[in-house]
Amino acid sequence: MKAFAPAHITGFFITYDDLDPLRTGSCGAGLSLADGALTGVSLSDQTEVRLNGRPAEASTTEAVIRLLTDRPVRVETRLGIPVGGGLGASAAGAVSTALALNARLGLRKTLNELLYAAHVAEVTNGTGLGDVSGMSSGGVEIRRKPGVPFDVDRIPVPPMFVYYVHFGPVSTKAVLADAREKAMINAAGRRCLKALLARPTFAELMRLSRSFAVETGLISARALDAVEAVESHGGLASMAMLGDTVFATVPGGLAEFGEVRRAAVDMAGPRLLNDGHQPDYFNSS
Amino acid sequence: MKAFAPAHITGFFITYDDLDPLRTGSCGAGLSLADGALTGVSLSDQTEVRLNGRPAEASTTEAVIRLLTDRPVRVETRLGIPVGGGLGASAAGAVSTALALNARLGLRKTLNELLYAAHVAEVTNGTGLGDVSGMSSGGVEIRRKPGVPFDVDRIPVPPMFVYYVHFGPVSTKAVLADAREKAMINAAGRRCLKALLARPTFAELMRLSRSFAVETGLISARALDAVEAVESHGGLASMAMLGDTVFATVPGGLAEFGEVRRAAVDMAGPRLLNDGHQPDYFNSS
Repeated sequence: MKAFAPAHITGFFITYDDLDPLRTGSCGAGLSLADGALTGVSLSDQTEVRLNGRPAEASTTEAVIRLLTDRPVRVETRLGIPVGGGLGASAAGAVSTALALNARLGLRKTLNELLYAAHVAEVTNGTGLGDVSGMSSGGVEIRRKPGVPFDVDRIPVPPMFVYYVHFGPVSTKAVLADAREKAMINAAGRRCLKALLARPTFAELMRLSRSFAVETGLISARALDAVEAVESHGGLASMAMLGDTVFATVPGGLAEFGEVRRAAVDMAGPRLLNDGHQPDYFNSS
Repeated sequence: MKAFAPAHITGFFITYDDLDPLRTGSCGAGLSLADGALTGVSLSDQTEVRLNGRPAEASTTEAVIRLLTDRPVRVETRLGIPVGGGLGASAAGAVSTALALNARLGLRKTLNELLYAAHVAEVTNGTGLGDVSGMSSGGVEIRRKPGVPFDVDRIPVPPMFVYYVHFGPVSTKAVLADAREKAMINAAGRRCLKALLARPTFAELMRLSRSFAVETGLISARALDAVEAVESHGGLASMAMLGDTVFATVPGGLAEFGEVRRAAVDMAGPRLLNDGHQPDYFNSS
């Protein structure tokens, strides 16, 4: 038995800091992708996390293991997405690990208990703020409140694909360390959230994400070129927060910027899968 | 474009009445099935609801239409489940209609707004209490609070099938009209919910549902025979609340009681589908 957690793209966000990790998090909007993390767990002599077949430093996954068990385990995660690309790789790794641990060790936790542990692991490690809550039910989501309990609403969308190109890593930790930058990001995020709640459609989410990326200056010149190339092909595009990654509703215009990946929007969120099961099988149209 | 809503089986429940339909509902536990309702909407001269190709009296679906639009529409629902069988047919019809209306008329409602409208339609028509919240995220769910906002947690389960046999309709309205019976049901439901929260596993949900069905006297003699037949084949079974339907983890023993249907546990909840899309495609293992 393996556990799957979707990748998660944030379009725009508002950060909330608190001494309590359960109250730390973000509001905003984003979407889950059928590319994500697939994790298996086995008992072992000492705890070890392997990523795509190699030993890895995975602080968030290690933290969620410590939160859930004292037993030494070997965790094997296959990531279908790049690390540091704003695709929620650390959250997907931690959530899929929590689900796999629960099944393998018979921990008898509910899904929310596992997700909350992953959220605490994520925010205390500074690898993300809203990816765990964002992916918790799959689909295209609006997060109205930060932290736990998750308060997630969804924008109904038909089965669809998202196309993305990844240029390189951005450290979430570094960007969110600058207080002045954070205040400016949060002001822009609040405007976007208010506008999206007034008109909750997927197209509006894409447009607001684009203004957020430009207004905050978070988007790189190359990524903005890619966004404009998609727009010249009639699509909508923006930057995945926080990564040097452009995501788009159509592939047109993206190919000249790098390898274009395609992923279905995941509608089911984190879940157990039978061995040999392809997560895409749940989602592709 | 069509909209799908899963069937929903309630294992046990506690009812909550209130003058405010948003505070009316039930707590309890249950699961969503990939058999459900598939609905398409078109503009028309007068509002008409058709079920499996024929004009139908569908009070809950008609109520959700009135809550969402003044425009006359033709609603065509195909049900993969029997009506009155404790499988949440009225909720699945109303939720899929709300989603289809939203897409067809560009209503720009969020998923929660659509679900809350369906919940109000369901409880004001007395056709159900917890099916809309129960199916809202798919999977195997625990509902800790009644009414809106939904408070749903989930028990992680691998992809799996549920087998069921339907004997005949039971009126939810009639059973819940008797105050003494309701008090007894609620006392049993509270014990089950407490026990499930202490040990949130799928097997425990099945066992508690069985005791609830027997203890409350809601199960028919024939349904109890079917439950015992499944148990003699090593499976777990109970009655779908409120219907003369037995659901089970294995098919063994059920065939002598009637037509055995098989449905995957639906992990994604209500969603839009492309035309020609099979909802099962999202779920089967």
